[in-house]
Amino acid sequence: MRRSLTADVAAGLEMPPIFCPLEAAINPARRAVERRAVGWLDGVGLCADARERAKVIATHSADFYSRFAPHADEDLLLPAVLWVYWGFAFDDACCDAGHYSARPAEFVPMALRVQRALERPVPASADDRYAAAVHDIGTRFRWAGTPVQFQRFAAAHRGWLSGVAWQIADQARGHLPDLEDYLTMRLHSAGGEPTFAMLEIAAGAEVPAAEMDLPAVRALTEMAIAVAALDNDRHSLSREMGQNPTSQNIYTVLLGRNGGSLAAATRTAAGLRDRVLLRFMALREQLRPRLSAPGRGYVDGLAFGVRGNAEWGLRVPRYLGDDTAAEVTWAERPMDDSTDPIPVPTISWWWDV
Amino acid sequence: MRRSLTADVAAGLEMPPIFCPLEAAINPARRAVERRAVGWLDGVGLCADARERAKVIATHSADFYSRFAPHADEDLLLPAVLWVYWGFAFDDACCDAGHYSARPAEFVPMALRVQRALERPVPASADDRYAAAVHDIGTRFRWAGTPVQFQRFAAAHRGWLSGVAWQIADQARGHLPDLEDYLTMRLHSAGGEPTFAMLEIAAGAEVPAAEMDLPAVRALTEMAIAVAALDNDRHSLSREMGQNPTSQNIYTVLLGRNGGSLAAATRTAAGLRDRVLLRFMALREQLRPRLSAPGRGYVDGLAFGVRGNAEWGLRVPRYLGDDTAAEVTWAERPMDDSTDPIPVPTISWWWDV
Repeated sequence: MRRSLTADVAAGLEMPPIFCPLEAAINPARRAVERRAVGWLDGVGLCADARERAKVIATHSADFYSRFAPHADEDLLLPAVLWVYWGFAFDDACCDAGHYSARPAEFVPMALRVQRALERPVPASADDRYAAAVHDIGTRFRWAGTPVQFQRFAAAHRGWLSGVAWQIADQARGHLPDLEDYLTMRLHSAGGEPTFAMLEIAAGAEVPAAEMDLPAVRALTEMAIAVAALDNDRHSLSREMGQNPTSQNIYTVLLGRNGGSLAAATRTAAGLRDRVLLRFMALREQLRPRLSAPGRGYVDGLAFGVRGNAEWGLRVPRYLGDDTAAEVTWAERPMDDSTDPIPVPTISWWWDV
Repeated sequence: MRRSLTADVAAGLEMPPIFCPLEAAINPARRAVERRAVGWLDGVGLCADARERAKVIATHSADFYSRFAPHADEDLLLPAVLWVYWGFAFDDACCDAGHYSARPAEFVPMALRVQRALERPVPASADDRYAAAVHDIGTRFRWAGTPVQFQRFAAAHRGWLSGVAWQIADQARGHLPDLEDYLTMRLHSAGGEPTFAMLEIAAGAEVPAAEMDLPAVRALTEMAIAVAALDNDRHSLSREMGQNPTSQNIYTVLLGRNGGSLAAATRTAAGLRDRVLLRFMALREQLRPRLSAPGRGYVDGLAFGVRGNAEWGLRVPRYLGDDTAAEVTWAERPMDDSTDPIPVPTISWWWDV
């Protein structure tokens, strides 16, 4: 099954276009922030050599987060952008690929050392380059944000690393999860939690706890993460299957569950993803008038992020190789417009809040 | 080294008494809550058989948390006590001992499935008995607490499971951590985060986010966790060395670092622990007048918890076997009264806030 999937992908499977009727915007400071971020990368010593440096810069992380936070001040956008560069570098070297990618007994201690480097307000001489760089970013977040925003980011960061540990554990056992487990894992492993937790830091406006922790706002956050994660599965399919044919993604999971063709799996995946997006849009509309200005800014940021992630993923060399000039075509309607809950307990409650 | 440690412990090493000049108190509802908790244990099917049931009841979890929350209403104390019973059962079956205790690739997915069972507001037919029981507890916390309190508890719970994953990863590799890593790991693996996160739920008073996330309150929480965790290392030394002579605890870590005798390691460990307690007490005094009533209640709960954990650990059959009638002798002065920061970066900042 997986071998034929690799062959299908290599043969140039036509993926359905993305449905995303959300406003697109980009921060005018993106080029300035990119220059400052590259200066930081060089100063902090995150990249081992010129090849690694070129690869990290090619993630276009400044472009990426400038779409999430189109209205942020340059000085508040910068630390978020630094974390995105850092996250991609760490992900490529220590999570999805590299030494740790199938070694949970080594990944977990390393990742939790990195987490502590972020959390503790003092540097440590024992920090490696990833820990030292994320400690530096943590210091910037403490400066740019409030203690509440910082703790939310730290908790989100731990959630992300726990999801990556799950992915690596499955990889080590050669285990392909079912849809329920895959969705739970992907809500964390995709990195959406820390990415969205930076929205309120970049905006310079703390969301009241009573709003941020509302089940409906939690559901909106998780839905935005899920849509972006499934879009990333789409963007990275050919790259992933080239690097690692046993990769866990929504397509291998659906094929493992339902069998059938990859073309059918791409339609099923798009249908699931579009139902989540439609629920996200409806709930956001319904909730928005009840929120404070920072709360509205946050849920608007979730929407900019979903759109921005799709735009970025359709253009970035990370996923496309050299084919970056491709014109983007968007779907005019969803693959599936059902408003029924997706009957998988880990997410079905998104339709109840 | 470890073989001789086991022999020392078996020969009946004299441990220094515990220094703990904090007020002791116990909730008058403890017996009523214990009865209700045992009824819940039987109803929810957490224990596989009578032997397991007896072992879970013998944790005296109702007594334990009645010391943490001496002033809580019975109906708010109950769900916290249920979680303590659940936590001990899960810990014994799935963390410290049992199938998962050295299998990180299996522990991580199982633990994160359990975490999701806590977080998602709907039950799932695929939940095993641990997941189903923690889901039930989560439902009770949603009823008893606010969304903010629930999210804090959920984040603390994830932090705990991440620490256990680290412990299991080290166990799988036969790796003994250094002091820095051990302290970082133990801040999470000890379970102190969820235990203390329940304080404000039991108190029925949400701590304002701007107080809870203050670096000084974070430091107080971590110090309370550290003292309780080191006390638990002391309580469980003979039990642990009997079950698993390669166990990671403060004594094996100090012996691995400094060599020397176990008797010397017990004094070093007590000295480190007492310095943290003294800093906790000083910072709490200093901070208390600046906090709201719920904030004061929270830091008072940390102190009740440190004292209560020590009292409970000195009396509970879990650690003592049948020797539960022993009279408790407390130390009159600390083993080390230095007010200098302990020079280990993961915790040295507790003296800066």
